[in-house]
Amino acid sequence: MTNLAPNQLPAWQALQAHQTRIAPLHMRELFAGDEKRFRRFSMQACDLFLDYSKNRITTDTMALLVELAQRSGVEAWRDRMFAGDVVNASEHRAALHVALRAPGGQPFPAPVGDVMPAVAAARRRMGEVSEALRQGRWTGHSGKTITHIVHMGIGGSHLGPEMGTRALVATGAGGPALAFVSSVDGAGLSAALAQARAETTLFIVASKSFSTAETMANAASARAWLLERGGFPAAAVGDHFIAVTANADGARDFGILDDNILPLWDWVGGRFSLCSCVGLPVAIAAGMDAFDQLLAGAHDMDQHFLNAPLAENMPVVLGLLGVWYRNFFAAASRVVLPYDLRLGGFPAYLQQLEMESAGKKVGRDGESLEFDTCPVVWGGSGNDAQHSFFQLLHQGGALVPCDFLVPAGGGSGLSEHDDGLLANALAQAQALMVGRDADETRAHLAGQGLSGEGLQALLPHCVFTGNQPSNTLLYASLTPRRLGALIALYEHRIFVQCVCWGVNAFDQWGVELGKGLARRLQTELADGTGGDHDGSTAGLLAHARRLRRNR
Amino acid sequence: MTNLAPNQLPAWQALQAHQTRIAPLHMRELFAGDEKRFRRFSMQACDLFLDYSKNRITTDTMALLVELAQRSGVEAWRDRMFAGDVVNASEHRAALHVALRAPGGQPFPAPVGDVMPAVAAARRRMGEVSEALRQGRWTGHSGKTITHIVHMGIGGSHLGPEMGTRALVATGAGGPALAFVSSVDGAGLSAALAQARAETTLFIVASKSFSTAETMANAASARAWLLERGGFPAAAVGDHFIAVTANADGARDFGILDDNILPLWDWVGGRFSLCSCVGLPVAIAAGMDAFDQLLAGAHDMDQHFLNAPLAENMPVVLGLLGVWYRNFFAAASRVVLPYDLRLGGFPAYLQQLEMESAGKKVGRDGESLEFDTCPVVWGGSGNDAQHSFFQLLHQGGALVPCDFLVPAGGGSGLSEHDDGLLANALAQAQALMVGRDADETRAHLAGQGLSGEGLQALLPHCVFTGNQPSNTLLYASLTPRRLGALIALYEHRIFVQCVCWGVNAFDQWGVELGKGLARRLQTELADGTGGDHDGSTAGLLAHARRLRRNR
Repeated sequence: MTNLAPNQLPAWQALQAHQTRIAPLHMRELFAGDEKRFRRFSMQACDLFLDYSKNRITTDTMALLVELAQRSGVEAWRDRMFAGDVVNASEHRAALHVALRAPGGQPFPAPVGDVMPAVAAARRRMGEVSEALRQGRWTGHSGKTITHIVHMGIGGSHLGPEMGTRALVATGAGGPALAFVSSVDGAGLSAALAQARAETTLFIVASKSFSTAETMANAASARAWLLERGGFPAAAVGDHFIAVTANADGARDFGILDDNILPLWDWVGGRFSLCSCVGLPVAIAAGMDAFDQLLAGAHDMDQHFLNAPLAENMPVVLGLLGVWYRNFFAAASRVVLPYDLRLGGFPAYLQQLEMESAGKKVGRDGESLEFDTCPVVWGGSGNDAQHSFFQLLHQGGALVPCDFLVPAGGGSGLSEHDDGLLANALAQAQALMVGRDADETRAHLAGQGLSGEGLQALLPHCVFTGNQPSNTLLYASLTPRRLGALIALYEHRIFVQCVCWGVNAFDQWGVELGKGLARRLQTELADGTGGDHDGSTAGLLAHARRLRRNR
Repeated sequence: MTNLAPNQLPAWQALQAHQTRIAPLHMRELFAGDEKRFRRFSMQACDLFLDYSKNRITTDTMALLVELAQRSGVEAWRDRMFAGDVVNASEHRAALHVALRAPGGQPFPAPVGDVMPAVAAARRRMGEVSEALRQGRWTGHSGKTITHIVHMGIGGSHLGPEMGTRALVATGAGGPALAFVSSVDGAGLSAALAQARAETTLFIVASKSFSTAETMANAASARAWLLERGGFPAAAVGDHFIAVTANADGARDFGILDDNILPLWDWVGGRFSLCSCVGLPVAIAAGMDAFDQLLAGAHDMDQHFLNAPLAENMPVVLGLLGVWYRNFFAAASRVVLPYDLRLGGFPAYLQQLEMESAGKKVGRDGESLEFDTCPVVWGGSGNDAQHSFFQLLHQGGALVPCDFLVPAGGGSGLSEHDDGLLANALAQAQALMVGRDADETRAHLAGQGLSGEGLQALLPHCVFTGNQPSNTLLYASLTPRRLGALIALYEHRIFVQCVCWGVNAFDQWGVELGKGLARRLQTELADGTGGDHDGSTAGLLAHARRLRRNR
């Protein structure tokens, strides 16, 4: 470790000089000049195959990036995180999500003590709850089996559970129906309750603090609905509500039974909490065995991250490539493209994981950072996106690094679908890299029967510069274990980037100001009063009131 | 109009000089110095209220931007589009989506002739089909009422219908259940069919060419499923399939009856086609009356765009602000934040609309453009995003212009939810603009009981620079008519930007190369052959084959 700012490190400055030499090169040339490029720039870990050869890198680039990681203290910070040190300094907390998937029966010693007894007890209770629900043994206040579950949580208490449930629900066919409510928009809760009956519906309230405004508004409305629709006494809340929270007192005050309060701890951040009891919906949808497999896959990746040399360490390599494009090519965004509908929730999950962890311009010691940090992370189903925003990736002119997530397929019995999906994923990554120059395009258009002025006019519109970088993560098919590895891979990747930038990955002070202002505005709306606001806020408030009156 | 490149126009250069003067100003100061700022920079059109006062602009900025629009020929290109001229030169086509929502009974003369008779006939048939389905009068091959509809289409044949259906399905309670299948991933079709029975399921195949690979693969599998599960003869396809296509012959060959082939025309681009028969799912979900209202709202906005002076023209103002941030502040992305779950599909819809229209670095005459064009467009449910990527918007340091879409609410009977949603929307836009400087933050932390070194250490993490620009579109509640206006607003907004950049908004040559490569790879996968590929593609193909063999 060092006291130099990241951009003052010799490795950083060497990378800058190196970039000016390498930037004019086309990846086509890099492939043409090195038969071993694919083998050189690909690796396997935890049943995931990473091809990163379609990046604007050479062996020198990777050597310099690895040096940057060393000089930035990636290994030391990783080891501190695994040791349970207070790596989240601004909140005086450890970040021990890796303990959540550590094997049972072994201690996980940390300054806060051995956390494994608490983790094991929580897993046990999660297993009991999820299996009771899956097997129809959980009955509501009138003795009927629970058939509908409405999960209420937002941010880290929502994106992971929904992503995981979508990914694995087919694995665990059967069990109650699951709906997710996150926004305070009443339309969300209404839609979730439209198909539900009070007697057979269970609610999960996931909130670390048990005071998240949106979640508590939804929980209160759900409780009112339950008691009114069911004609139940207040005690029925005990049969129909589960809490996942670090605030057991708050949950008890709400009416939730001690047995139905699943724990959280201050050493687990919301966006890193999927492997805790926050993952309960995944266990309900896919079964506790599948959830245990997910934990095992995440643990495999933890061990890989902890033990593999930096140059052969998948999260490290991906994190360094992130730094490479962000800081040396000024890439403002990165796009995530699953060719796998089961990973439909993954881009939104990563948006929180990455942008909330690294969307900061202040270093961990409070210093202002004079370089770019987190890019915008966006994306969506890759095959769909080909017919949508890929136009911009191919011809928009901006460097946008792409992550392709691709199952090899072949097991569905629908070979045309499997082949089509795989072929499209590989073809798009290929087209983005290779491009099509003017001569090739001229030949292509001539082959379509064009010539003369018509060909000449169309030509510039049909040229592709290529040289757009991408990573491809290839796997046989999405299993719980591979999903766990994928989650841990991206968790550690952003951690590596944060270390390189000198940023605390585990706090999120940027969410506080808006919360405070919202409380104030909500009070004014309820009271009909008007506070001291800027002209825009005051004007919008007045106009909204006018619209409400005129309904 | 002019032959100068956009960035050589005097207005462009004046904007550059102006930007250097205005960039250091904080919006707080702009509000403090102008009591009328909110009134000055807000407007109303088609029942939508736009507040654009929280932008980094002055009256001079807007005057220069309007001059840029004039000099770029926005009015002339708009008038050419409405007149049905060949504004899509590279494909030799008009772009007459505005005719799709023109009032019936009046001609819409264009060089291709009066399109209104064909439009009116299509609308009539759409009404018959959608009402028959909603009223349970459409029966399948065995005489049973259709209860499930599976819509198959991708890109422009998917994003609009799904967005519109999600937005308006609550308006038209009742009618068959609707599922959307777009990707070739077999998991999509399987999930849609899991709840369906052959006897009561209808399929809509939406493909302008009736040859889109993904859609045709899904349609073929759906047909096989129908005949096998239903035990039906091939002729049953006639009772269970509808096509929306410009290729009636292709649909007939598939087995679809003439009466069930709804038309499309080459003067409607996929991403501009929601107001054509492509919108059929919306009419089925919400009713044809609602769809007619959507058309009326879009037509209102068309008329506003056609007639309002540039400075008071909502799509023009929004488009110019897009140019302002992209070209003069180098903003690489723009984020769209609906505080309205019914608009959950709107960000993905806009991603195609904007990035496929403007993701180009070649001018309409084939010239290379020496300035940035389309930014990345991304977003998601605003209230959810507060607990996710808002960290980056507040403290990430990059300028990311925001669009807030906000219903005033107040009609749901759930006042805590309505107030909470509105308060959060206004508070976030406020916080992004106002920020919180070091002195205010110090006072805030002291108010929380912090002092001394503890306060000092936390202080830099809790400062918000603010000055992050946003537009707020406020409306009473989402109706079909307002949704129509919103759609047309964004269509014309991106058109304005394209004119300012000198880009053809209506072609999309960037999607072709990958399609061709995918066809080749798919053949190789099916045949077990290997073509001549770069090392990465060859390596990935080999590895995927290995994974498939080892299943």
